[in-house]
Amino acid sequence: MKPLIFVTNDDGISAKGIKSLIEVAVEFGDVLVIAPDKPQSGMGHAITMNHPIRLEKSMLYNNCEAFTCSGTPVDCVKIGIYEIMHRKPDLILSGINHGENASSNVLYSGTMSAAVEGAMENIPSIGFSLKDHDSDADFSEAKEFVGQIIKDTLNSDFPSHVCLNVNIPKKSDVKIKGIKICRQAHAFWADRFDKRLDQFGKPYYWLTGEFLNQDMERDTDLFALENGYISVVPTHFDMTAYKAIEQFKKWEI
Amino acid sequence: MKPLIFVTNDDGISAKGIKSLIEVAVEFGDVLVIAPDKPQSGMGHAITMNHPIRLEKSMLYNNCEAFTCSGTPVDCVKIGIYEIMHRKPDLILSGINHGENASSNVLYSGTMSAAVEGAMENIPSIGFSLKDHDSDADFSEAKEFVGQIIKDTLNSDFPSHVCLNVNIPKKSDVKIKGIKICRQAHAFWADRFDKRLDQFGKPYYWLTGEFLNQDMERDTDLFALENGYISVVPTHFDMTAYKAIEQFKKWEI
Repeated sequence: MKPLIFVTNDDGISAKGIKSLIEVAVEFGDVLVIAPDKPQSGMGHAITMNHPIRLEKSMLYNNCEAFTCSGTPVDCVKIGIYEIMHRKPDLILSGINHGENASSNVLYSGTMSAAVEGAMENIPSIGFSLKDHDSDADFSEAKEFVGQIIKDTLNSDFPSHVCLNVNIPKKSDVKIKGIKICRQAHAFWADRFDKRLDQFGKPYYWLTGEFLNQDMERDTDLFALENGYISVVPTHFDMTAYKAIEQFKKWEI
Repeated sequence: MKPLIFVTNDDGISAKGIKSLIEVAVEFGDVLVIAPDKPQSGMGHAITMNHPIRLEKSMLYNNCEAFTCSGTPVDCVKIGIYEIMHRKPDLILSGINHGENASSNVLYSGTMSAAVEGAMENIPSIGFSLKDHDSDADFSEAKEFVGQIIKDTLNSDFPSHVCLNVNIPKKSDVKIKGIKICRQAHAFWADRFDKRLDQFGKPYYWLTGEFLNQDMERDTDLFALENGYISVVPTHFDMTAYKAIEQFKKWEI
């Protein structure tokens, strides 16, 4: 029996990135797509609790069944499993995101949060991101490696409650050198707010800023990406800071 | 000089929980509040990228300066640091949430995501949640312990890039037994969608379900809560599954 592969993203169902991912996924199994009906970048692990969720059949792809969802990427995974498939798929793929999601961006990323939700459901799950924000980004080289990683995943004994954060360098004249298994770099945003005045003279703000990496070790996802490799970070959702537990024990009453 | 304490939440600025938290916080320092102008439960680590953010001065509290923000709890932290305070506060407090955020709910929780954002900024940060969803929940007993934990934090050598996930049992006839330092329990939602038809006969869905704990160890936050203790989980944002790295090394190209 062919594997059942669930595909979602955070850029919305009509993005070139999810189209590219579907084109690879259909080579490996039966594909079901549920993707947001609008861009959901930066939605992190948000779920829709205070509004109803809408689901609509989509005719956008003729190689698979597809739906749009009014909710977040995590909503897409939940409604896919519990309302549409009524079973757990064999694999969850999210992306290919237009823009990288390396380092601590895993927390902000809707693409990766869909994969993390898959890990919570104990389904092998992978979030793919290309380091190119262009809506017409070139996914041709990325697709080869996406296929390789899907094949490796389906043929492997995938660890339980883990997903993969895969980031792919932007297509350039230099070929991708290979794949590196990494840890999440310790790097952060230096945020800035662009303050403007509306037509009534009242202020509004756009969140902007730059991403700063002060983690100079060579085992990080950012190091791999900067050196022409695809980064693969095994990712889980246990956020306990185990190393700090002992220090706090003296607070116990 | 008095410490500068930043306060936010995800239930919105007028919730009883944040009012209770502010009442405790002002005993320890100068308080600045920036909280969502509407409920933002379940928003996780979402940030507002595709809409402008609005900030309005609030006159709701006479013991501190306060603003409402149209964005998410994480937006509140970012705009507080980078646009209003122009410095890092000495302490970030989030909550007190109406409802618990133990175990893997840390990922969905706007309350905890604000604290995690504080940890990313390397500011001692604490998310407080009471195991009582009632909008008129009784925070009186919780407030004593919140004060104790704030005092411990200000007097301690707080570890870098860590925050605390504090969950407090619902007020009952039995007094809270004490405080336990715990790890995040390995427990999940069994989701369900409540499907209804709108006035045009078109379906819509409400996300619902129940939380299931199959983690029977005694060192978890859920165990502490169920046994009448306040749970404190030191929490970080490195989601790397270090134990799985070796297994994936054979995928390297």
